[in-house]
Amino acid sequence: MGILIKNGRVIYGEGFEVVEADVLIEENRIVKVAKNITEAADIVIDAKGKVVSPGFINLHTHSPMGLFRGLADDLPLMDWLQNHIWPREAKLTRDYTKVGAYLGALEMIKTGTTTFLDMYFFMDAVAEVVEESGLRGYLSYGMIDLGDPGKTEKEVKEALRTMEFIDKLGSERVHFVFGPHAPYTCSIALLKEVRKLANEHGKLITIHVSETMAEMGQISERYGKSPVVLLDEIGFFGSDVIIAHGVWLDSRDIQILARHGVTVAHNPGSNMKLASGVMPLQRLINAGINVGLGTDGAASNNNLDMVEEMKLAALLHKVHNLDPTVADAKTVFKMATLNGARALRLNAGVIKPDYLADVVIFDFNKPHLRPINDVVSHIVYSANGNDVETTIVDGKILMLDREVLTLDEEKILDEAEKTIEKLA
Amino acid sequence: MGILIKNGRVIYGEGFEVVEADVLIEENRIVKVAKNITEAADIVIDAKGKVVSPGFINLHTHSPMGLFRGLADDLPLMDWLQNHIWPREAKLTRDYTKVGAYLGALEMIKTGTTTFLDMYFFMDAVAEVVEESGLRGYLSYGMIDLGDPGKTEKEVKEALRTMEFIDKLGSERVHFVFGPHAPYTCSIALLKEVRKLANEHGKLITIHVSETMAEMGQISERYGKSPVVLLDEIGFFGSDVIIAHGVWLDSRDIQILARHGVTVAHNPGSNMKLASGVMPLQRLINAGINVGLGTDGAASNNNLDMVEEMKLAALLHKVHNLDPTVADAKTVFKMATLNGARALRLNAGVIKPDYLADVVIFDFNKPHLRPINDVVSHIVYSANGNDVETTIVDGKILMLDREVLTLDEEKILDEAEKTIEKLA
Repeated sequence: MGILIKNGRVIYGEGFEVVEADVLIEENRIVKVAKNITEAADIVIDAKGKVVSPGFINLHTHSPMGLFRGLADDLPLMDWLQNHIWPREAKLTRDYTKVGAYLGALEMIKTGTTTFLDMYFFMDAVAEVVEESGLRGYLSYGMIDLGDPGKTEKEVKEALRTMEFIDKLGSERVHFVFGPHAPYTCSIALLKEVRKLANEHGKLITIHVSETMAEMGQISERYGKSPVVLLDEIGFFGSDVIIAHGVWLDSRDIQILARHGVTVAHNPGSNMKLASGVMPLQRLINAGINVGLGTDGAASNNNLDMVEEMKLAALLHKVHNLDPTVADAKTVFKMATLNGARALRLNAGVIKPDYLADVVIFDFNKPHLRPINDVVSHIVYSANGNDVETTIVDGKILMLDREVLTLDEEKILDEAEKTIEKLA
Repeated sequence: MGILIKNGRVIYGEGFEVVEADVLIEENRIVKVAKNITEAADIVIDAKGKVVSPGFINLHTHSPMGLFRGLADDLPLMDWLQNHIWPREAKLTRDYTKVGAYLGALEMIKTGTTTFLDMYFFMDAVAEVVEESGLRGYLSYGMIDLGDPGKTEKEVKEALRTMEFIDKLGSERVHFVFGPHAPYTCSIALLKEVRKLANEHGKLITIHVSETMAEMGQISERYGKSPVVLLDEIGFFGSDVIIAHGVWLDSRDIQILARHGVTVAHNPGSNMKLASGVMPLQRLINAGINVGLGTDGAASNNNLDMVEEMKLAALLHKVHNLDPTVADAKTVFKMATLNGARALRLNAGVIKPDYLADVVIFDFNKPHLRPINDVVSHIVYSANGNDVETTIVDGKILMLDREVLTLDEEKILDEAEKTIEKLA
């Protein structure tokens, strides 16, 4: 099955230059980007007045947490977690989590996300949803042992069970990732075991690191060093590690991350809403660190809209540095596409022959996207996820003209409503 | 003509409590909010699964600047102004400006803004657009004399001409406001003359104050005091003054603004994008100052989406203060509605009998707005302007189910494209 997208403005190549061209997709790859492509295709999409963009890669989220969206806002982090989120999470079953995963997948497809890196519970259920939805998912079971050796073993077992489940699915789109939650919730033994297992099985690792000042204090008290130095000393880092947040990083931390080729998943919306702090984006970029973009969970954002997240990233760093030239449109666009793909070792995030056909089409026939003075600027600064009209992953159309083809939208919204009532 | 909005979730009263109720509009007023209203109405809107909200009041913008959207981003302020914006503005004619005003009006209707406070040139043309669009507009001609007495007279003349033009329109929705640009671009003579004329004609005043550090330096060098102290000493302030930005305000400035009942129009998106700085929101609120919300022009935002602006406001102040409890959802919602109305002495911004029928309906049948755990939180943190489905101003429907009824959308987008080519 081939797809031919005609007459669009295409955000082309690793430099994200805008060209007027057609895009031909065959199987799951982009095979040709040129003017007036004449090859036959099963599906022809007219993108006149529209923009063909790489799909977005959400490099840190907890996709089922959409269930908790808006349940508790404007609260101190620990009040939010202890009195609102954790009591409800304690009641989560596999079925409830799956409802949340459906809601998250639906929201991502509708806002142009094509790939996401997830951390949560019941990830076998999430894997089933990803497979059904047509998205590309990198899924980690969030391991937390709180220093209890009995729990360490249990968590490793659950991670390996999830890994086997996902590997057995045999999907090219669904991948297992190791997900120890954070240095302050995981023992050194667990972290070392994860490193060993990731080497053994050739899997990526994702972990929350240096998100809040509270965490910095705890780790400093317990170990007398920063979370990054701690992880470095136990041999945890490698270019297969993606740390989420990295808000509180000093120069030594940054050198360590750069040396190991660690990727940092930046979550500006969540860091702002929870008042965690401002990641030193410029210093990370200057150190040559690969920085991707994530929304974090919908309970602390409160959506999974990567288009909105790009604007938050750009604006936050401009005002924080009192410098309007930092975090320019193309830099944050690259964070949300190519940098995410690099972290996941995925041949995506770019529109160019031989890349995976993970492509979205924006409808620019809207007042807030006109005149079309600058396509990438408009996507970063003016657009939002609702402006995405068509979402294609792995050469398959998941949403066409705002209609999701792989999931039952009405049913998912309805079940989400019913599920949160049960968790009250 | 009556409008009955049935079965919605209504954000009711000055406390923005969410109730399930019908809303009855007669003439240009809300006349009844209750369950199961049985009165007849010419138009009945079913709002099941939807949210009925006060329309948003954009308290600071330059509506025709949508033409320049994305033309130049990520630049230092003076480079942006001198090399990109001003050369194009110099070529603006009345006709070109009117095209920009149409684009701005269209964008505002489509994103749920019902009233706006504007400052630009050719404001008679903008007034015609406002009248035709059905929006409520408070329009100021931006006066700049740069200390040249000849110019002072010319600017006052143009302001008075605009005032007469607008007063002659005789529209209840279109109002003239005096708009001296800023203390650094206006002479003391001009500022004093404006104060006198505003008293004489009973008009409001809006002015940019303390937006950038560069401005603070200039005013300090020229007058040896802050812009606020300067304006206070010449008797400029009153409860009829709305200052835009107020980023760099010290304790003395804040006391002065509070004493005179001055309103501050906060523009978080623009302040972030231009890296102007962070307004001391908490200190203004604690001092009892009325703070409204604005988008600023689309050249520095880059859209006029008040729904997005609420999120930017909330998130910016949380992270800046490292306190997630500040700028909570209801506080910023009030800034975007009731506080704006108060500044404009307008009986709007609230859904309750006797208030003006300036109402918008959000479609909540979308994954990013489900489950409906908290309506106001969802609007502030999860929604964007595209989620507004219906816009009603002064008891008249301007947009129904995303279709704008008062303006020709296709023609406006087309003319915006052609106009910016002519301004290149």
